[in-house]
Amino acid sequence: MKELKERILRDGKTLSGGILKVDGFINHQVDPMLMDLCGREFARRFAHVGATQILTAEISGIAPALATGMHLGVPVVYARKSKPNTMPDQVYLTLAPSHTKGRMVELIVSPEHLRAGERVLIIDDFLASGATILGLVRLAQTAGTEIVGIGALIEKTFEGGRKALEALGIPVESLAPIASLDNDQIVFAD
Amino acid sequence: MKELKERILRDGKTLSGGILKVDGFINHQVDPMLMDLCGREFARRFAHVGATQILTAEISGIAPALATGMHLGVPVVYARKSKPNTMPDQVYLTLAPSHTKGRMVELIVSPEHLRAGERVLIIDDFLASGATILGLVRLAQTAGTEIVGIGALIEKTFEGGRKALEALGIPVESLAPIASLDNDQIVFAD
Repeated sequence: MKELKERILRDGKTLSGGILKVDGFINHQVDPMLMDLCGREFARRFAHVGATQILTAEISGIAPALATGMHLGVPVVYARKSKPNTMPDQVYLTLAPSHTKGRMVELIVSPEHLRAGERVLIIDDFLASGATILGLVRLAQTAGTEIVGIGALIEKTFEGGRKALEALGIPVESLAPIASLDNDQIVFAD
Repeated sequence: MKELKERILRDGKTLSGGILKVDGFINHQVDPMLMDLCGREFARRFAHVGATQILTAEISGIAPALATGMHLGVPVVYARKSKPNTMPDQVYLTLAPSHTKGRMVELIVSPEHLRAGERVLIIDDFLASGATILGLVRLAQTAGTEIVGIGALIEKTFEGGRKALEALGIPVESLAPIASLDNDQIVFAD
């Protein structure tokens, strides 16, 4: 998506370890107008899959998921990384590695809000190794839902996440696929 | 706001300890259409304050803040509760008690995204004792910004938060002020 790629080139920063810092417009500070455009684009690309619910992971998945939910007109559930005391004792829980925290984190969803019969679209900020999204996939499968699509704002195509998701046989869309961050150069894949 | 109050009466649950559980439409699961309406209403109520930025706290402040940012056309910054490794070493940090976690949590903002000269509108999901919002106030003041308004989706008027914010002399708006949760009855204040 043109607007997102231009913004990444303008305000994204490459850090050591293959990290792309986008905390000026996606995480920490969010540009609501850009998110609205991204949500509209996800809604267009996934219009045919018949999603009844969007699943994401807190924290930085919330903004793109919410914007997509606004355009598709379906509720958004975000997996929590710690269990608040308002959640029932019995939950769906899986573990996934956090890139920016350097450790495993929990992904927790209440059975009250992820139910068999839902058609789930997974939306997140990044698709890199696919580990977080695969965690969401496990939660959605455990709950007995049908996963109908996966969308990420930014894909690092060189980290193999798309390959890891291939077996699901569902559409995987990214709005800004990046082929390389070598030598601090952001090179888009398309 | 009528739509929010009706939804609270329909789907909100009272738990022991004066907790109102709204995780079916505000936190955990979010209703994007309701958030859009709430964002529109905050934008209407704060149209006159000239906000240039919205400040909130992760996690459940993000959805209402983002929706408000869409309608006001200004960026949203959310205070992080742990410092990701993409953030500079020097940050603004304060502590605030978490109602649902039962302990103190950190609120952290990068100086890159909260700067002197900004006119900051604080938006959060709840105004109860005011402790989290006062944490955001301290961050915004330390950064040298001017705080121009405070908005919360739900206010528990019986917990005194509005009184604690009075000294700031700025407009405080809540879309669903609740006067009492006694005996599992939700009683609105207006």
